[in-house]
Amino acid sequence: MFNKILIANRGEIALRIIRTCKEMGINTVAVYSTADENSLHVKFADEAVCIGPAPSKDSYLKIPNLLAAAEVTNAEAIHPGYGFLSEKAEFSRICSEHDIKFIGPSADSIARMGNKTMAKETMIDSGVPVVPGSDGVVESYEEAREICDDIGYPVIVKASSGGGGRGMRIVEEEENLQKSFSMCKTEAETAFDDPDVYIEKFVEDPHHVEIQVLGDQHGNVIHLGERDCSLQRRHQKILEESPSPLMTPELREEMGQAAIDAAESVDYEGAGTVEFLVDKDKNFYFMEMNTRIQVEHPVTEEITDYDLVAEQIKVADGQKLEEKEFKMRGHAIECRINAEDPAHNFRPSAGEIKVFNLPGGHSVRIDTHAYSGYRIPPHYDSMIGKLIVSAPTREEAIKRMKRSLEEFIVEGVTTTIPYHIQLMEDENFQNGTFNTKYLEKFNFNPE
Amino acid sequence: MFNKILIANRGEIALRIIRTCKEMGINTVAVYSTADENSLHVKFADEAVCIGPAPSKDSYLKIPNLLAAAEVTNAEAIHPGYGFLSEKAEFSRICSEHDIKFIGPSADSIARMGNKTMAKETMIDSGVPVVPGSDGVVESYEEAREICDDIGYPVIVKASSGGGGRGMRIVEEEENLQKSFSMCKTEAETAFDDPDVYIEKFVEDPHHVEIQVLGDQHGNVIHLGERDCSLQRRHQKILEESPSPLMTPELREEMGQAAIDAAESVDYEGAGTVEFLVDKDKNFYFMEMNTRIQVEHPVTEEITDYDLVAEQIKVADGQKLEEKEFKMRGHAIECRINAEDPAHNFRPSAGEIKVFNLPGGHSVRIDTHAYSGYRIPPHYDSMIGKLIVSAPTREEAIKRMKRSLEEFIVEGVTTTIPYHIQLMEDENFQNGTFNTKYLEKFNFNPE
Repeated sequence: MFNKILIANRGEIALRIIRTCKEMGINTVAVYSTADENSLHVKFADEAVCIGPAPSKDSYLKIPNLLAAAEVTNAEAIHPGYGFLSEKAEFSRICSEHDIKFIGPSADSIARMGNKTMAKETMIDSGVPVVPGSDGVVESYEEAREICDDIGYPVIVKASSGGGGRGMRIVEEEENLQKSFSMCKTEAETAFDDPDVYIEKFVEDPHHVEIQVLGDQHGNVIHLGERDCSLQRRHQKILEESPSPLMTPELREEMGQAAIDAAESVDYEGAGTVEFLVDKDKNFYFMEMNTRIQVEHPVTEEITDYDLVAEQIKVADGQKLEEKEFKMRGHAIECRINAEDPAHNFRPSAGEIKVFNLPGGHSVRIDTHAYSGYRIPPHYDSMIGKLIVSAPTREEAIKRMKRSLEEFIVEGVTTTIPYHIQLMEDENFQNGTFNTKYLEKFNFNPE
Repeated sequence: MFNKILIANRGEIALRIIRTCKEMGINTVAVYSTADENSLHVKFADEAVCIGPAPSKDSYLKIPNLLAAAEVTNAEAIHPGYGFLSEKAEFSRICSEHDIKFIGPSADSIARMGNKTMAKETMIDSGVPVVPGSDGVVESYEEAREICDDIGYPVIVKASSGGGGRGMRIVEEEENLQKSFSMCKTEAETAFDDPDVYIEKFVEDPHHVEIQVLGDQHGNVIHLGERDCSLQRRHQKILEESPSPLMTPELREEMGQAAIDAAESVDYEGAGTVEFLVDKDKNFYFMEMNTRIQVEHPVTEEITDYDLVAEQIKVADGQKLEEKEFKMRGHAIECRINAEDPAHNFRPSAGEIKVFNLPGGHSVRIDTHAYSGYRIPPHYDSMIGKLIVSAPTREEAIKRMKRSLEEFIVEGVTTTIPYHIQLMEDENFQNGTFNTKYLEKFNFNPE
């Protein structure tokens, strides 16, 4: 087992990884930008190395600085967390060239899933259901029009190198196709340095359901059930839960097997997530695979016996996945607590957290790097914590979440806590009758 | 179901009860002394009534004030928590006379278990194993000497109305008997207004293992497994865990049945705990029954599907206990975090908590009424929080507890956190080779 791991990330996920390393008896190296020197991940790691100033491109994204930090501290492995370099194939490759174990999949697996067109082709070859659409990159408007005639509107034009809601446009009818197609290409070029786009049938009002998978170096892949992440704002997940309100044991088995097939098709190692759209008839379609630990992974942990970060480390160490009966028990919900003002279009609210009083009690989990007196740096995302609750039933979990949110007191900055409280009281949420578009219609009432 | 419950307690347990009430949709009334007006239980209840100044006899122990608070707020039931009036038969009786449901057993059940001599007789009649000893109250030294000759030394002389380590003396040999016997009687008279004492064989180096039971108003009693509470200082529990390191499925079944028999013998309603001593040969002996919710109840909650406070409320409402398969899963440990100085004989450390940074992450639970800026009133016990962790195995739970303790930062007052950290590192604790005397020998090393 590794003696020392460097965590190439910040905030709650860096702290999350440190926690598991401590429990496994592994020493940790934190890295931090000068803007993050008061972050808890720096305080709780065994060692900490400053890797540059904000913004991220000068520190958390700077591969030479990270490798130097690993080499100077004799770290044997690097955990990339999520975001930043976690899905950069190049980083995985450079780590192995430097004989540092990248805790995650190979550069090749990342690259094959990172390119959306290539990923879709791989899925088709592996028999994983995909949304009908173009056969790879669409070169011209004429070709686009033919495809759309064939699959029918609405369609979605997507940048091949995009993801997470970036680089995509929905086209409701043919008269908008030409403009959207060319704008999407231009945007893709600007944002991802790659003008390639592809086209898919736009699945209306779907659920976003993702399957957690784990693969080891010996070719074994298992799935750990689903998370429903349909509640999104501008393609950013707001709330995640497991099980999905729409799930049945049969559908879980089918989707689980599809996710395993997807991971096996790229010889996947580590923790990963296969994202699907599920339509109202419970047809499911592969969307993309996230080749890293996800923000919402605790939802799975709280209703299974798995510590997903521990599993990542164990398989990176070459261990075989344990054979044990997989069981989900009860229901878990995660609310992302962001320093944003839900009454003013979720604008970020920077500054110092004066009071930070956490909820507690039965089956309440909090993952946060913030504390009373913490100053939120303006350079990074606005998430200041994740509140996760579990309970025997969904109904009880919703009630537990509501009372936990009411106990969560943050002063000094505005947060999304009141928004989540109203969501817990919302009848459609309570009934599970929502989809990925639901939050567009959900009205927050600033009291 | 009750519309409104008054909580006749303070601190973490008052907050704990409020949490479950909120989740059940029940309104809450907090009561508080003037010394507690900034406590979180006051803040989070729907209503709060001041019932007098500190010390407790002028507020939390003052039955007329509590009843007046219940009547003025139209509370239909009173939850007594632990300590204070929770095991006063009179309080249960007066509540029912005022048509307020006491959430706990009847006055009769409390009285029959509260008097240790009577309880022991009841246990003998019900076939529950008890420690060999006197047949009830011992009137004279001569009688005491005969009994001790019969059962053999060491013996323990106990006040009939005592409990929780108060009003007891161990006698190692006959020459000390006379003095100890008369001192114990005098102390019992002073402390409990009742000079009666009884004598028992002193079980050497036992484990303290208790069984959680639940009884409803329809005569059903179930048990929810054990908690090992052997780690005590001066009869005060310091750390509790479940399962007990010494437990086997067979012993659990036997002890569970004995606990059910004990509860049934007094027509027990509500949550209760039957405490046993277990000797090195795994013989178990009834010690006493605590007729209330206990400090350490979360240990059971975290490895079962039960919310014990919810169960208390449901059976108080007349509901039948649900028939469901009982299963313990994994291992849970609770450390009591006290504002005491372990380097100076655990002297209380009062004052203002300047920094209170809680641990978080996977399967970490915190029950506390404290927060950054909270001033600990000098009038009450020194516990400022409970840290409970769970994990699939005991070994993993110990590691999780250690890292959680290391993350728990309290500034402004001295706490027992460093003591618990050293306990987690202790080989005997790790091996489960300890007993109720172990902490007397355990040396804390103030660094």
